[in-house]
Parts: sequence; C-alpha cells; structure tokens
Amino acid sequence: MESWLPGSSGPAEVGPRLRGLRGADLAASACLLSGAGAEAGCSAPAVAAVLPAGGSGERMGVPTPKQFCPILERPLISYTLQALERVSWIKDIVVAVTGENMEAMKCIIQRYQHKGISLVESGVTRHRSIFNGLKALAEDQPNRRLSKPEVVIIHDAVRPFVEEDVLLKLVTAAKEHGAAGAIRPLVSTVISPSADGCLDHSLERARHRASEMPQAFLFDVIYEAYQQCSDYDLEFGTECLHLALKYCHIKAKLIEGSPDLWKVTYKRDLYAAESIIKERISQQICVVMDTKEDEEHVGHRLEEMLKNELNHVKVTSGRDLQQIILEECYNFVCVNVMTSDFEETQKLLNMLEESNLSILYPVVVISVQFLDYESEPSGQKMENLMRIREFAKEVKKTNILLYGLLVYYPQVCVSQWLAKQ
Amino acid sequence: MESWLPGSSGPAEVGPRLRGLRGADLAASACLLSGAGAEAGCSAPAVAAVLPAGGSGERMGVPTPKQFCPILERPLISYTLQALERVSWIKDIVVAVTGENMEAMKCIIQRYQHKGISLVESGVTRHRSIFNGLKALAEDQPNRRLSKPEVVIIHDAVRPFVEEDVLLKLVTAAKEHGAAGAIRPLVSTVISPSADGCLDHSLERARHRASEMPQAFLFDVIYEAYQQCSDYDLEFGTECLHLALKYCHIKAKLIEGSPDLWKVTYKRDLYAAESIIKERISQQICVVMDTKEDEEHVGHRLEEMLKNELNHVKVTSGRDLQQIILEECYNFVCVNVMTSDFEETQKLLNMLEESNLSILYPVVVISVQFLDYESEPSGQKMENLMRIREFAKEVKKTNILLYGLLVYYPQVCVSQWLAKQ
Repeated sequence: MESWLPGSSGPAEVGPRLRGLRGADLAASACLLSGAGAEAGCSAPAVAAVLPAGGSGERMGVPTPKQFCPILERPLISYTLQALERVSWIKDIVVAVTGENMEAMKCIIQRYQHKGISLVESGVTRHRSIFNGLKALAEDQPNRRLSKPEVVIIHDAVRPFVEEDVLLKLVTAAKEHGAAGAIRPLVSTVISPSADGCLDHSLERARHRASEMPQAFLFDVIYEAYQQCSDYDLEFGTECLHLALKYCHIKAKLIEGSPDLWKVTYKRDLYAAESIIKERISQQICVVMDTKEDEEHVGHRLEEMLKNELNHVKVTSGRDLQQIILEECYNFVCVNVMTSDFEETQKLLNMLEESNLSILYPVVVISVQFLDYESEPSGQKMENLMRIREFAKEVKKTNILLYGLLVYYPQVCVSQWLAKQ
Repeated sequence: MESWLPGSSGPAEVGPRLRGLRGADLAASACLLSGAGAEAGCSAPAVAAVLPAGGSGERMGVPTPKQFCPILERPLISYTLQALERVSWIKDIVVAVTGENMEAMKCIIQRYQHKGISLVESGVTRHRSIFNGLKALAEDQPNRRLSKPEVVIIHDAVRPFVEEDVLLKLVTAAKEHGAAGAIRPLVSTVISPSADGCLDHSLERARHRASEMPQAFLFDVIYEAYQQCSDYDLEFGTECLHLALKYCHIKAKLIEGSPDLWKVTYKRDLYAAESIIKERISQQICVVMDTKEDEEHVGHRLEEMLKNELNHVKVTSGRDLQQIILEECYNFVCVNVMTSDFEETQKLLNMLEESNLSILYPVVVISVQFLDYESEPSGQKMENLMRIREFAKEVKKTNILLYGLLVYYPQVCVSQWLAKQ
C-alpha cells in the first residue's frame, strides 16, 4: 500500500479560495450538531472521507476508467475531490486507486492543486478498495500517517455533484445511528428473473429505494464490519450499509438525497455532467468596457441584452475586476470601441493568470473590437488586431480561451444597430 | 375518447425518406421469424404500439411535462415517434395524451410530419392511459378505426432511442411467450426501508434487474389482463409485465436491452439526450466548394482537417449535392475563395428548403468568404457580404441556421496559412 500526502493536509489549508460563505455557515452548524465544539472552541469534527476509485468503467464503453474521463478536459474525479475539499470539516480524503493509475492520480492532484488527499492502492473489488482506505485511517495499522476520524464518509469518485448539506445530514445521522446512507426513489420497477430468463416476480416500487452514495459511518462500526466480513462479502458485495447491518447489527438511517447524487455510469452520464457543469459556469459573465466609456457605451447595451439570458451579469470598467475574478467568474467580454490595441484585454489576461482561476475550469475571454470600414484602411491597425492570435496561443497554455471578434461597420450604422436591438 | 388520424395510416407511407437499409433488413427478419410471411407473400406482421404520454413530469423540475420538453427545439416525444415510425412493420401507433395536451400533440404530429399516429385521451394514471390505448385497438369497442394487432408494443414517450433490433426481439419473444420486456442491470443496490426510515434489508443486486421499456404482448393477453385487473392495480401499479403475470399467468420473457433505452426522467437526462442527438447529427459534414475550384482549393484542405475530427466528411462542387442531402447530412460549409456573392450558398439553401430535411433537425450552413484586405476596399463588396444576414433571417424560419464567416487576409498569407495547418 502506498501513501502519499502532497503538502500539509490541515483542513484550514484546503482550497480556501473556493470555499463560499454557505460552506462556513454549514461548518458552524456541523460544529453545533456534533457537540465536539464545546471542547476546543469549536474545532472541526473528526470526519474523513474514503473514495474507492479503482473501477475499470467497463459499462462506459470507453477504454479510460470513468473516474478519469475528461469533462471540459478535466478528469471527473477532480470534480468530486473539489466537492469534498470545499467542505471545511472533512479533514482527510483517502482515495483508493490501482497501482497502474497511481501516477496519473498524483498528476491530477498536483495539476488541480487538490489538498489533503492521501492515496492508497485499491483492491480488486470495491469493498476491498474501501477496506484499504479505512485501514489508512485506522489506529491498528503500522506506519499510519492519518489520525482516526470519529465519522467516515464513503463516497464514489464518479458522483461529482455531492453537496455539503447532504454530507452534513449523513454525518449527523451516522453519529446518532452508527450508519447513514443517501437514498433516491426508484426510476424503474425492479424485477426478479427466474433461471430461464423469464419474470419470476416484480417488486412493489413504492416499498423500495435506490441506495446511493455518499454514506457515513461511525468509523469503529464500519471498520469492525470490514474486519469481520467474509471473503465472499469482499468479493461479491457492493453495499456498505449491508455490512454494517450484518456484522454490527446497525440499521442505517436513510436520508433522501437530491437527483444530483446520481452516479456517472454510462457515456450519456458524462454528457449530462458536462452540461450541468457548463450551465453552472456559464451563468455568470463580466463585461469589461474600455476606460473611454460613455453613457451610450456598447458595454451597457450588451449588459441589458445578456441579462435576459444569464443569471449574473456584471459590468466593470476595470476597477472591481479583481473582486469579480475572486468570485469565480469564468466568462469575460472586453469591449473596445475606440481603440485597436489590446491594453484592457492584456490587463485582464494578466489578472486572470495571476489568480489561477483557470486551473479548475477554462476561462473564456472574448475581445471585441469595433472598426469603421469607411475610415481610411490601415494595414497597421489590422496588424495590431491580428496580434490577438498570438495572445490566444500564449494564454491557451494556462487554460484561458481567448477569442477575438471584429465588428466591422460603417460609423453611422452603430447607433442604428444599437437602436434596433 | 378522441381519435385522430392525420392522413392515411398505412405502414408503407410512414416516413420512407427516413428508413435506412438496416430497417429493411430487420423487417425481412421480422417477417421470417413471425411465420406470418407464408400466407400473403411476407406481409408485415400485425404489430401496433401504444405510448402512454399523459405524465406530468414532476420529477424534471420544469413546468412542461417531460415528453414535451424541447431537445434542439423539437419536443422529446417527436424523437420517440420518429424511432417507432422508422420500423416498417409497426402498423399503428396509439398515443395517449391528456385532453389539455391534445391540441399541442396534434400540432407536433403535423409539424414534424408524423404518420400513422392515433391519439386517445390519457387516464389519470399510467395504467389507465395504456388501457385507453389498448381499447382503441380492441375489437369489442364501438366506432373503432384501427384493426386489432396480433402483438402490441408498449413503450414510453420519454425513451427516444429505442432501436429496431430490440423491438424485433421483444415482438418475437411475445409471440412465443405471450409477453416480453426489456431489462437492464441495476446501477444501484435496491434497499427496503423500515417504517422509521432506517434500513430493513438490501437486495442482492445480481439477482435483480431494472424493468425498462419497451415491452411487447400478445394483444389478447394484455387486453385481458387490463380488463380483469382491479382498480387498485390501475391506480397504483406501473408494471405491465406484472399484470400479465397476475391475471393471465404469463411469465414474460426478459430481453437484455441496450443502455440507450433509459428513460428521460430528470433535467440531466434532457442534457444527455441532447448531447447524444447532437453527436449523431454532427458526425457528418459536407464541404461545398465554389465551382472555380483548383488543386489547392481551401475546400480540400478543410476536408483533410475535418477528417481528423468527424466520421463522415464529403466534398462536392455541387453535382452530387442532392444525393448528400438525401443521405441526411445536416452540416454544410460553403467555401467561396474567389467571389463575394452567394450564388453557391443560395443554390444549396434552395435545395435544402425543397428537401424538407430541416423539419426534424436544424441544418447548419456556414458560408465562408475569403477577402483580401490589401485589395482596394469596396463598399459594394461589403454590402454584398452583409446580405448574408438577410438570408440568415429568411432561412431560419425553415430551421436552417446560416452563418457567415469572413476570412479577411492579405493575399500573400493564404498559402502560408494553409501550409502551416
């Protein structure tokens, strides 16, 4: 078993840039609910997470295991890690991957700057992988580098949209009941086939639920269950709640989860995940105007139009750009009416590069230039404009996608065009 | 109950333009397997389909019932109808919709030119809707306009990707066993909760399957089952296979379906369906060159590049355009190096409009003009080029999306640019 911790795993250092206010609120509630806060001025409850990620993804129909399939060029598992990292009260995240994928996983952690992750080698089955993850957190193991948590969350690497509120409900319920799992209504009727491939009986849909992930357990409960369980369980079982019931007589509390908890299983799920992520990051846009703005500036007109399409539209002439970038806006339009240079765009690109915003998602910048075609044609002006291709090549290396848009018009038409919109 | 047949419902007239060779092959096999072919020189087996489409789609989280949600601006149910229409041996398709949606459904049938569809009013539950659909096909009903089929397929309006091969397997199995249903492996473990919201027991995943749609039945079997079944069944049941078992003692044959059979249930499923459809129609592109082509024509270079990205790339200077349109190509690039007029593009647009290709999917046409910016600037030339906006508005009404792309370059650069690619 290999263990690897990039940098310190202290929870205070885990992706602070990405943690919103909502996270802080929930952390406070977690504290309140846990009862652990009384001792050390509301210290984070001892919660760790184990992610089995050793699967081969054969159902996906693609050679890459599904947890490593790219969504917007970033591996699926990185989104799941990000979702867990955002939760301030999860101290350690243990990921079980195959020896074959160990190096790739290290690269992912480094590239996307994930913090507080430990890697262990996965087993040949899901249960064995989880067991390996639990061992890395247990007290009775030699050379252990992590401390035993009170509660452990078990989650799937291929469920990237897990929210803090369901994690909190599960952890709270696990403290009370010993185990808790997320459930969803069944989408299809479940049937039991007979040996000859015919219907034996069908189950009443209302009396059954789909058991989803995440699940949470008192660490001692689930570790005990794994230590006691049979080889048959480890080989053929998939359900942790079942082990807790069978070996520790713990009846898990069932928590209704959101539809977002679904497991990325088939290629269509990758499409769905990509669309969900795209929708999330595309709802916020910032229009950057050149500083020679006026009342009738096209930037303001653009703002009006974009507001009909998008949830969050901001306009700036540059002063509060830093703040907008901090709030994780991934889409920018730079509008240049009067100039044929890229001073404003260049400034924005510099700020974006410094912010590291584009590590997690591509940042899109559209630099719009208005040019009067009736004015004297100027080779020099065009050369200036065509420099954008060089910029674009340069910033693409840092995951910033720069596009140039030249609006070529007779001067007199602009006001007409704007009036028409 | 309302019954409505737009035009003739003869199977030979159902969307012949859309029926591929594979469909014809399968129809021949269907004939062979059915044993019905012997009597009347291989007449189509008597198969009808019933589609309950009265659901409210509350799980989708959108006000529109999911079967009417648009995918690429076309309602989901139209894709499902298209999938069934393509199967030459399905004679009638009965769709059960609410009175409220009856007019909307008629519009969909008319707009997308669906043939052989009958509408009936849905019931308040899925089972009641199916029963209404079956009644429209039964012999014992007054004023019936459809003939009783030997086998009836029951399918969901929200499963648009059903393929002919699985339909054929089901119909064949239904003839032999009286009933047949598509199944899929379970993605999640199924559990049974206790009354207090805790785990009672979990089911062994390998011993159970998800019951999907379509299903097929000897008409007399399933109609008998619906006639006998209790009000409780009609109110709270969902599974037709269960009714055939309970009331007619028919153990349905279970047929493994493809992952594509999944039911569009949540918003993410709409995203997935859209991506699947986009992928299908975007893998074929046709590059139309202007007739003043030469060896170094940019169209040929474009072809080389596109071949790395897409499955089917064709290049034409216009002569075999008609054939390419018939083969359902939805993407065109018109490359014009030497002219600033739109003669070639206009020709293509005319052919597309005549073909009705864009009834089912949007057709994308990109008209590319190369223009030397060092040549004498000509207002007239620009005015010509800007006419594309007028064309675009015009053809958008017929679902053709026309884009203009002006590549503005110094003459000397073109060969350099091409050499670099």
